[in-house]
Amino acid sequence: MSQPSTTTSAGPEQGAELAAARAAYEQLRTRGLSLDLTRGKPSPEQLDLSDALLTILQPGDVRAADGTDCRNYGGLQGLAELRAVFAGLLDVPADQLFACGNASLTVMHDVVAHAMLAVLPGAKQRWADEDEVRFLCPVPGYDRHFTICDRFGITMVPVPLTGEGPDMDVVEELVAADPRIKGMWCVPKYSNPSGESYSDETVRRLAAMPTAAPDFRLFWDNAYAVHHLTDDRTPLLPVLAACEEAGHPDRAFVFASTSKITAAGAGVAFLGSSPANMAWYARLAAAQTIGPDKVNQLRHARFFTDAAAVETHMERHRELLEPRFAAVYEVLERELGPLGIATWTRPLGGYFVSLEVPEGCASEVVRLAKEAGIALTPAGAAFPGGNDPRDSQIRLAPSFPSVDEVRSAMEGVAVCVRLAAAERAAA
Amino acid sequence: MSQPSTTTSAGPEQGAELAAARAAYEQLRTRGLSLDLTRGKPSPEQLDLSDALLTILQPGDVRAADGTDCRNYGGLQGLAELRAVFAGLLDVPADQLFACGNASLTVMHDVVAHAMLAVLPGAKQRWADEDEVRFLCPVPGYDRHFTICDRFGITMVPVPLTGEGPDMDVVEELVAADPRIKGMWCVPKYSNPSGESYSDETVRRLAAMPTAAPDFRLFWDNAYAVHHLTDDRTPLLPVLAACEEAGHPDRAFVFASTSKITAAGAGVAFLGSSPANMAWYARLAAAQTIGPDKVNQLRHARFFTDAAAVETHMERHRELLEPRFAAVYEVLERELGPLGIATWTRPLGGYFVSLEVPEGCASEVVRLAKEAGIALTPAGAAFPGGNDPRDSQIRLAPSFPSVDEVRSAMEGVAVCVRLAAAERAAA
Repeated sequence: MSQPSTTTSAGPEQGAELAAARAAYEQLRTRGLSLDLTRGKPSPEQLDLSDALLTILQPGDVRAADGTDCRNYGGLQGLAELRAVFAGLLDVPADQLFACGNASLTVMHDVVAHAMLAVLPGAKQRWADEDEVRFLCPVPGYDRHFTICDRFGITMVPVPLTGEGPDMDVVEELVAADPRIKGMWCVPKYSNPSGESYSDETVRRLAAMPTAAPDFRLFWDNAYAVHHLTDDRTPLLPVLAACEEAGHPDRAFVFASTSKITAAGAGVAFLGSSPANMAWYARLAAAQTIGPDKVNQLRHARFFTDAAAVETHMERHRELLEPRFAAVYEVLERELGPLGIATWTRPLGGYFVSLEVPEGCASEVVRLAKEAGIALTPAGAAFPGGNDPRDSQIRLAPSFPSVDEVRSAMEGVAVCVRLAAAERAAA
Repeated sequence: MSQPSTTTSAGPEQGAELAAARAAYEQLRTRGLSLDLTRGKPSPEQLDLSDALLTILQPGDVRAADGTDCRNYGGLQGLAELRAVFAGLLDVPADQLFACGNASLTVMHDVVAHAMLAVLPGAKQRWADEDEVRFLCPVPGYDRHFTICDRFGITMVPVPLTGEGPDMDVVEELVAADPRIKGMWCVPKYSNPSGESYSDETVRRLAAMPTAAPDFRLFWDNAYAVHHLTDDRTPLLPVLAACEEAGHPDRAFVFASTSKITAAGAGVAFLGSSPANMAWYARLAAAQTIGPDKVNQLRHARFFTDAAAVETHMERHRELLEPRFAAVYEVLERELGPLGIATWTRPLGGYFVSLEVPEGCASEVVRLAKEAGIALTPAGAAFPGGNDPRDSQIRLAPSFPSVDEVRSAMEGVAVCVRLAAAERAAA
């Protein structure tokens, strides 16, 4: 993503632009909007796509393929038939895949918590007993990953993204030198919020790089594995296989969920890793639960009988998402394209558009938008500590509102960008 | 529970009894039984009672009372209408009650994990930074509580039960003297496995006792709050109110779930505590989840519109459980009553009968039963470390098998008790 520029000398043109931008903003405020582009929430229409789940099980039809009564206790690993469906989509062998509770965020949190309080395979001690634990955080990234680090006192080390994943020269140098770096957050496909996917070369280097910490782990949050927005499905190199080939079989934990496939918060999360990591996890999970909600897993297994059914279902999500993303691009091009004061991503999948405004303007854009009734993700949220050093990145989440609402919101955002940029240029 | 005795002098009578017991056991083995009394699992008939949950929500009917679309993200505290139903049953104000995931075990584990890694209200430091953390464990108790302690390296200190809860003289002396004692497991009603309920006096003393640790907590696992087996509903003094009155408002965490009300593993768990504790928990839970499975909570809220509906539903559970417990008593009385070699509980609720056999015989009874095709909970499982110092307690779980199977299994258990006691008397 190239950097937008502001004109650097103030003059009569700037004065006219500032006056025009102020007038546009005043007009925007009179519209009394109440719109929200903050979070990557599925729209009600997307959720409707999975409403068959609500009644897919009838009384008397509660047994898994192996005869298990899904209403009763047990089955730590989750339903085999559901794991079989998602194993191929996630490139994790089914016997190394757990079907868990309702949220991959919980599984990520819990794996970090477990590593704090139990010795990981290959580790010398619990992370809670280390003087300091550090995680690499490709930026811009997912704020909830950073919240997990905050909560456990893990120091976050930002590393830049390149459009093909993290800057591997930077990553390799850091992990080779610093044994305190125990982990790295990765959203390898349609990354939140940049939209980029990791190249094969990136995945291979992550799998192969020497690390000073013997217990370094990739936290591979494959949240958007099947969430395509175009026909270009962007194959992702299977990370577990790459790690094993590179001689680091225990390097990656793979996370995913159906939150943006079926229902957000009422779906099924998955965890996959090497046999050694999964044995470690299973031992700890056995103290935490007797088993996941198998009834909900059976609903999902009946709804998705194979991987192809998931892919077909995701096409219908795409049909609902594409016009919303198109509305974002259309407004940005029309309103900001001629001004040259912003750039934005056009992701091939996922839930976000990343908007880059002139340096020092992102917070002001978000503030102006809020005053005009348009809620945006706080500026800096995609950076550890909420601190975007350039104050220039804004995450746009167009999935939830209607297409008309997205268009109205983006027209408002464009006005705010224009005003913030003009004020800055005139300052 | 009085202690059973063995005859202490071996003689011709003992020889005849041993021979008869051996013959009975050989006959038992020829029956080729395959029966299981190990775990407190609801029977399929009990689970059928809640099958309306499967189809209670239809497409288009997915909104909570406040309009929330339960299929989407959010709502950390869980559905208000479901919390309102269970608040009264659990004696926790609804605004201090969270409706969580599918298992109270997970909530208990997580509260301990959170206390290990975040400073509890009133604590000086995280428990992970203490040299040693100890929990009081009334015995016999619930093995999964002890597994949580094991997993976090918490030292378990057994304290005896009296029939009205833990021996409070012992408890008060221990917690007053030892600041390492940070917690205590309590199953205050129809305790697993002894069946006893805590008297008002016990609850008041637990709430009021001075503790050397400023961050001492009661882990109040009210698993059987509404699981009556008789008309004597055994009121339990509300622990949060008692703690507040005694000047220790933050002392108790209350846990419960619908696992043995609706579906085991597909129900809803609850956590309640003081405002300060719940604020602490909410802050930590917000890093772990965006919210619980609200769709499943809405199912439960539709199924149970008020507390009376829960009580009525539990009457139907009782109708299925009572004959199973009756079969246990009937066989034990007939087969072991005249011999005077065992005693057993007759709980007013819950899921277990606790069988006391002659000292040193429990492991042998479980071994003999296993060889005859009857699976029993391992001897000692109800004690920290699996170590019953008298080797005399056996937990019987009659809920899952049919009444006929319970009767067959108990006839077999009686034969095993008789043989183990006779062998011991003859030794």
